[in-house]
Amino acid sequence: MDFKQFVNAKSIELGKDVIRMTTAAGSGHPSSSLSIMHLVTTLMHDVMRWDPADPWHPGNDRLVLSEGHAVPAVYAAYADLGGMVGRDRSSAKALTKADLATLREADSPLDGHPNPAEGFPFFDAATGSLGQGLSVGAGLAIAARRRKIAKQIYVLIGDGESREGQIWEAMDLIADYALTNVVAIFSCNGQGQADYVSPQQSAETLAAKAAAFGWQAVIIDGHDAEAIRSALADAEKRQKPLAIVARTVKGWGCASLQDQSNHGKPVPANKLNAAIAELDGMYTTLETPRTEPPAAIPASPPDVTAFEQRAIPPVDFKTAVDKAGLSGALEKGKLATRRAYGVALLAIGGADERVVALDGDVRNSTFSEMFAKKYPGRFVECKIAEQNMVSTAVGMAAAGFIPFVSSFAKFISRAYDQIEMAQIGRANIKITGSHAGISLAADGPSQMSLQDVAYFRSAGRTDNGFGQPACVSFHPSDAIAAYHCTWLMANHDGMCYMRTHRSDVPLLYAPDTPFEIGGSHVLATGDALTIVSAGYMVHVCKEAVALLASDGFQCTLIDAYSFPLSAQPILSAASRTGGRILCVEDNYIGGLGGAVAEAAAAAGDAVVQSMTCTRIPKSAKTPDEMMARAGLAPADIAAKARSILE
Amino acid sequence: MDFKQFVNAKSIELGKDVIRMTTAAGSGHPSSSLSIMHLVTTLMHDVMRWDPADPWHPGNDRLVLSEGHAVPAVYAAYADLGGMVGRDRSSAKALTKADLATLREADSPLDGHPNPAEGFPFFDAATGSLGQGLSVGAGLAIAARRRKIAKQIYVLIGDGESREGQIWEAMDLIADYALTNVVAIFSCNGQGQADYVSPQQSAETLAAKAAAFGWQAVIIDGHDAEAIRSALADAEKRQKPLAIVARTVKGWGCASLQDQSNHGKPVPANKLNAAIAELDGMYTTLETPRTEPPAAIPASPPDVTAFEQRAIPPVDFKTAVDKAGLSGALEKGKLATRRAYGVALLAIGGADERVVALDGDVRNSTFSEMFAKKYPGRFVECKIAEQNMVSTAVGMAAAGFIPFVSSFAKFISRAYDQIEMAQIGRANIKITGSHAGISLAADGPSQMSLQDVAYFRSAGRTDNGFGQPACVSFHPSDAIAAYHCTWLMANHDGMCYMRTHRSDVPLLYAPDTPFEIGGSHVLATGDALTIVSAGYMVHVCKEAVALLASDGFQCTLIDAYSFPLSAQPILSAASRTGGRILCVEDNYIGGLGGAVAEAAAAAGDAVVQSMTCTRIPKSAKTPDEMMARAGLAPADIAAKARSILE
Repeated sequence: MDFKQFVNAKSIELGKDVIRMTTAAGSGHPSSSLSIMHLVTTLMHDVMRWDPADPWHPGNDRLVLSEGHAVPAVYAAYADLGGMVGRDRSSAKALTKADLATLREADSPLDGHPNPAEGFPFFDAATGSLGQGLSVGAGLAIAARRRKIAKQIYVLIGDGESREGQIWEAMDLIADYALTNVVAIFSCNGQGQADYVSPQQSAETLAAKAAAFGWQAVIIDGHDAEAIRSALADAEKRQKPLAIVARTVKGWGCASLQDQSNHGKPVPANKLNAAIAELDGMYTTLETPRTEPPAAIPASPPDVTAFEQRAIPPVDFKTAVDKAGLSGALEKGKLATRRAYGVALLAIGGADERVVALDGDVRNSTFSEMFAKKYPGRFVECKIAEQNMVSTAVGMAAAGFIPFVSSFAKFISRAYDQIEMAQIGRANIKITGSHAGISLAADGPSQMSLQDVAYFRSAGRTDNGFGQPACVSFHPSDAIAAYHCTWLMANHDGMCYMRTHRSDVPLLYAPDTPFEIGGSHVLATGDALTIVSAGYMVHVCKEAVALLASDGFQCTLIDAYSFPLSAQPILSAASRTGGRILCVEDNYIGGLGGAVAEAAAAAGDAVVQSMTCTRIPKSAKTPDEMMARAGLAPADIAAKARSILE
Repeated sequence: MDFKQFVNAKSIELGKDVIRMTTAAGSGHPSSSLSIMHLVTTLMHDVMRWDPADPWHPGNDRLVLSEGHAVPAVYAAYADLGGMVGRDRSSAKALTKADLATLREADSPLDGHPNPAEGFPFFDAATGSLGQGLSVGAGLAIAARRRKIAKQIYVLIGDGESREGQIWEAMDLIADYALTNVVAIFSCNGQGQADYVSPQQSAETLAAKAAAFGWQAVIIDGHDAEAIRSALADAEKRQKPLAIVARTVKGWGCASLQDQSNHGKPVPANKLNAAIAELDGMYTTLETPRTEPPAAIPASPPDVTAFEQRAIPPVDFKTAVDKAGLSGALEKGKLATRRAYGVALLAIGGADERVVALDGDVRNSTFSEMFAKKYPGRFVECKIAEQNMVSTAVGMAAAGFIPFVSSFAKFISRAYDQIEMAQIGRANIKITGSHAGISLAADGPSQMSLQDVAYFRSAGRTDNGFGQPACVSFHPSDAIAAYHCTWLMANHDGMCYMRTHRSDVPLLYAPDTPFEIGGSHVLATGDALTIVSAGYMVHVCKEAVALLASDGFQCTLIDAYSFPLSAQPILSAASRTGGRILCVEDNYIGGLGGAVAEAAAAAGDAVVQSMTCTRIPKSAKTPDEMMARAGLAPADIAAKARSILE
């Protein structure tokens, strides 16, 4: 049986598995899965060098299934090869054909869409929200280059999916870095969910677009194994990244699934045998011997080792500041939190080669530039394309790196879907959003992030299934806090978000002050009122506390710099101020005030008032003027405090 | 003085205004502004047919400044033409050269980045977060086509900015709809913020990409007025949408601003005269007579009228369901909220021609399909590109339409940055996210929206400057609620978000039940405990209430279906249950539980416990199984209630 017949036979048999498992699940996407069956089999059974017994092997070629809904095709091939499943090596077992019937069950590693975190380590990232896989592939490819591992990254992309702009952001980045170890394979079956795919995503147009983006593009028959294999040959000779545009048939081998109305519909149980018979009929149609195709063992991966897992050796603040050449700024006693992020990133990068940084053309504003200048080989300039930047970081994290991603906090919001997918895949990425909040002033609201606190806090009380929050977040008030919070991000195994501000602010803390996830610090103590704030507003609140003290009201001031917030210290402090709490923020509601209110309302022993940004901001020339306009100036806070106290 | 000399002279004089106003402001982007000065002048003083005295005129050609940071160039040209500024016609006045010095001041209509809502009606949308303008232009162009208004939409895009994938999503949509009334003008000055622009965004590459996307592409000298004008000639003869790739010089006319280090830096006051002198020197360089260039009056727009503003005449639920052919489903007493959205959209569309709908290849899941089939001319199939979809809706809203945007709630999160920009521009768009929450079950977390409630609630207490929330949101529990909430969205002037679910659920309300923004309804009354929920979980809570009743605990059940939530009725109800409140949600924290806790903690007279999704979900076969896995089954809620009561 020649290779073409082998893949035909495999595609028929695995196609039958796809039909059976989706019918058993009562949901899923058999027609999409059948359209990529030859592509998947050719890759997994022949082209890819990988070890089904060790899907964690760092030398394995990788397959990223960007069109995640077609995952039953991969599950079927994986079971055929006895690939290992499990959330860790100790609990891993080989996937069997029988296991396929557990698709989408609560205890099955075969989730509805690809997810390495639920026990399918063959994948590197959660996919299923479309258009993100090629970016993940770019991250895996950059990581392999950096580690000098000769491996190929194959990304399967749907034609309809390639409408997502992020795909083209990834095409640009891969071309910028000449990542010839990535192959983008577009499966053009011509059908979307609600309608046929636009001519803008036809095979010819996609090939023309890829060429215009600086890629080598070839159009092939996606059900011809020889054509697939030859298109993928001679990887080491590639001068440009390769885009394979494969003409495929949605519902291949099963005429009853090929009508446009079949997207995402499993075969009804009473039609299962007929559908299986249709696939069996392909043996005759393809003149392929009706014999169980021989087993195939993928070629072994190269002998390489994974990164050593270890805690990053600490560097104290003063040493890091000196190394960054900022001792002068320190003597002035003022430093922006965004600049302290740069100082910390530089120090952390010096302490561990796993640390990499990505930025979106604002590195001189976020100060990831300090790292970029010292460690250019570990810095990825993603240009103005935040979605691709976040998903690229996910790919690098999957390869064992510790990626730090930075942009303006406002522009990070462009990648919230990608961030949620990173949480689902338990990607160990660190995100820092700068220029947050209304203190940015003159640039106006298009550059300010105002919903980020509520958004990231929302993921702080959700367990990632490994005993950690889905996302930890930080909102440091001074440079020392920002420095230590960056280190906390580096050593925490899981997603983190940090919010920094543009303005230089005075130092509030001693260099060796301890910081922790969910922590807070008491900056002033009094019995009148407990004021809770974070970030830039802590400085404004300090002025308010002084105003109140001059009126004879001694207030407690707490800097609550991290979520998920440990609220007990705040509630205890409030008990000394008659249970009176005032929260002050430079963002919209649902952030710190929400966290304190939730804790207080659950305990039922405090009264929490809140001050936030209550009008869509516009430009103002200075932070002080902006605060006054927003009713968040020291005098406003003091007045609100008095109204509570009177 | 010929046209080329006229534009040179204007560009020199307006360039000096740009330098002066950014120096006066102490921030801003003079170098970027100078790079588009000839493009802006050629458009605003000559090519565009518009009325500076009536920037609201529906017949005006439109200019969308996608690279919003270059807005001083437009402000200078607008002042030169005496364009009207003001938040409404009654308060409008002509912008003067003297006004330019107020750039970025708190009381100035000249915000740091373009924003029609703060008094600059020449613009249609807030820009400044990059890559969104071409989508807005697509919306304006579709609107003009729909209203048969012969007008041109010009979109100015930066080269670095064109890395954003959304630009290419817009290129696809404009090609799909053959919108030859849009012109994309790329300003290629070769400089980004942190570095030079990638070769992937060079003039040649952008032209090749545009051609591959089905556009006519031409490369010109962006400082040659004749070249610009001739490239823009014969609009009515265009067979394809036109992309003009203009080679420009960042800091044109001002050598001291042309170094790559000058991004976003105003000229220091002590160097102002030198910079002005450099620009004056261009008269000699360009052999342009050093005379004040003559005034220019743009050609008048065609005589067309705006939409009549009116309330949409109501259609009762039963009539709408009959028209939708769903009476049968109604007799069964079960209907999904997403399907009720389709029923309402069909009825609203029949009642008002301003209503349009946009979807991203899931119209048969969100049920915007009902509208699409009946009113194909008012439906825009945006395919799988959510960012472009939202910004396109913003453009249509600017033209007076009432756009309803729908996709899976999870995929709407991909457009949160665009949604924030829409809020800033006060775009009157209605967004519906379907398949929200964990009740989706089998498809798994990549298709579930879990942070959307916290995210959208966050904007509910922020005033948009016109006495309305920045965003109103709805989370209906049954088909009747969803129907009425859709109508509330249609008649509310401002952004709205509605969250719907996949599953068919029983009807809870009488067809004529009143619903209102911020409202809630009491579904059961008891003295033991007040349970507050929304959406799908209301049905789960009903079962829990029945379990508790069988134990002798009579509970109050409240359906809190809208934000900003009027909490008083809930707190009053809670006072009858000893101040005991339990909130139940199928999403992450910060949503309904947060809103109730914030209100309760401010009043200080209630104890609020909360149940939410506390583990990143994975697939489960049924909603019931998912709820059990998440600890949110009726038995779990009842157990939690008992723990509060004991």
